Amino acid sequence: MNLDVEILNALRHAGNGAVSGADLSQQLGVSRAAIWARVRELRHLGYEIEASPHLGYRLLNTPDLLHADDLLSRLGPVSAIGRNIQVFQETTSTNDVVEKMARDGVKEGVVVFAESQTRGRGRMGRNWMSPPGKGLWFSILLRPDIRPEQTTRLTVLSATAIRRAIQSQTGLPAEIKWPNDILLEGQKIAGILTEMQAEMDQVKYVILGIGLDVNLSAMDFPSELRKAATSLKTHLGRTVSRPDLAVAALHELDADYAKLCSGAFEELADEWVAHCGTIGREVCIRIGGRQVRGHAEALGDEGALLLRTEHGHLERIIGGDVTILK
Amino acid sequence: MNLDVEILNALRHAGNGAVSGADLSQQLGVSRAAIWARVRELRHLGYEIEASPHLGYRLLNTPDLLHADDLLSRLGPVSAIGRNIQVFQETTSTNDVVEKMARDGVKEGVVVFAESQTRGRGRMGRNWMSPPGKGLWFSILLRPDIRPEQTTRLTVLSATAIRRAIQSQTGLPAEIKWPNDILLEGQKIAGILTEMQAEMDQVKYVILGIGLDVNLSAMDFPSELRKAATSLKTHLGRTVSRPDLAVAALHELDADYAKLCSGAFEELADEWVAHCGTIGREVCIRIGGRQVRGHAEALGDEGALLLRTEHGHLERIIGGDVTILK
Repeated sequence: MNLDVEILNALRHAGNGAVSGADLSQQLGVSRAAIWARVRELRHLGYEIEASPHLGYRLLNTPDLLHADDLLSRLGPVSAIGRNIQVFQETTSTNDVVEKMARDGVKEGVVVFAESQTRGRGRMGRNWMSPPGKGLWFSILLRPDIRPEQTTRLTVLSATAIRRAIQSQTGLPAEIKWPNDILLEGQKIAGILTEMQAEMDQVKYVILGIGLDVNLSAMDFPSELRKAATSLKTHLGRTVSRPDLAVAALHELDADYAKLCSGAFEELADEWVAHCGTIGREVCIRIGGRQVRGHAEALGDEGALLLRTEHGHLERIIGGDVTILK
Repeated sequence: MNLDVEILNALRHAGNGAVSGADLSQQLGVSRAAIWARVRELRHLGYEIEASPHLGYRLLNTPDLLHADDLLSRLGPVSAIGRNIQVFQETTSTNDVVEKMARDGVKEGVVVFAESQTRGRGRMGRNWMSPPGKGLWFSILLRPDIRPEQTTRLTVLSATAIRRAIQSQTGLPAEIKWPNDILLEGQKIAGILTEMQAEMDQVKYVILGIGLDVNLSAMDFPSELRKAATSLKTHLGRTVSRPDLAVAALHELDADYAKLCSGAFEELADEWVAHCGTIGREVCIRIGGRQVRGHAEALGDEGALLLRTEHGHLERIIGGDVTILK
């Protein structure tokens, strides 16, 4: 842990109270001058730290900034996800960065955030808009011991964890849209892109790419998306702390991934179904050039959607674009 | 097409006859001196070209050499596989080279051969021995419009095509061992490594890696492999032309891939079953830490093995290590 994070931890631990420079100096084993130098640096980053000659330092406010060491420290011990966190100011796509790491043999659990992406990606090579400082755009490297067709489980897991984090941080009743979106009152708030590298019968690695529209305004969306997409800020009428939400999301993702690895996928699937707005609805699904209509009956094995078609057959759908019909 | 290939084509076309320098010069639109310079170059590469002052040039013998332009020219027009051929003297693994191409957006159908691989790979990160000049070690980039779980179809296709090429070139009755090997009288002669990059419901690309033991001697195999592995040369008692076999293999692979893309997988599956030594046998399959024993009953959807277990259940096996029991 670096000195910045140790100082922030000590200040957070003090809550509304102050910590004297002398105490910090002794506790962290560095000079008072070194503490003061770091505090000035942290202020530059936007941390509001009050320095009173008699009482010492007090943390008044934390900037809406993704600070890798601070996120690591706040997240604490993890099973896998978040054991290594990196933040980039700008990347093409965080999935690209993580893919390179994966090929270089990096261990699972690394998380890469970017303040902005120049070529953020959605499913099927679609664009994902990711303007600077307004959302959480991040990717996670996983190396689960599963077969390629089980990778949908990771999408189920991610959707469940992200939905739970949104609910806990904002109270908003987000719901899951099969297969990979999170909606707020029918509008898209987050998307999940699951990419894998695999042999025929064994996954080598999976990259979960998550895009979460936190503090975008309506004007940040191109006009053609304004009806379909939204942000937490738009719904709440206030900005949401991205670092708080990031920590909550990683915490939920790590816990659910540990569950999956211990064989408890059913539990996640049950939670998924309970919050999936697609199940029980009449839908039209576009799969490549084909369209099927029917009643979304249930979630099948491995995260497939079981669709009762117009003709009464039960069809197992792996992926596609869903439109919910009235 | 480059000049070397045009000269070789003209000489091959003449069969046992000779082609005069004047005719070649006129036909190819270059000077007689240029022809003579290229003929000397080709002789350096090992092509035995007789030059007689009165009759002209005659191709007596072709070296056992993988010459990209020559392979391209002999293969002729293709649907996809072999539209671009590259030959490396040495690589880590041809799959690595093709993976890099795939990420760079190269079109499907490119084939990369290496005379030797320093880190040839088999399934599950196993080693694949690939000494210089003795085998065909090559990889193919494909971008089929399939779902991840359908990728096994490409392994079925490759095994069928490679088996057919071996039979046509050598007359040897090769058989397929599920899921990805070719055997001659129970000994391994070729292996197929199918790797993919995919989204949850859509394959982005597949790399077929093929290793074919052509002219290895028993001594080329480490002692622990001598019982399990063999080569065409060992079985025939003579060397086999690698370029001839390469052209035959690419031809079969391209034809079968075109079939697959046009929806005729069933046809390939039938041929696969007809030549699969695993079907109808008592087998033991190791899948990760688990072992199942039973009767290999049939090939299921997407290339899975349908195993009637000791307990009478029919189990669908996607991948694993098969031992055939007596």
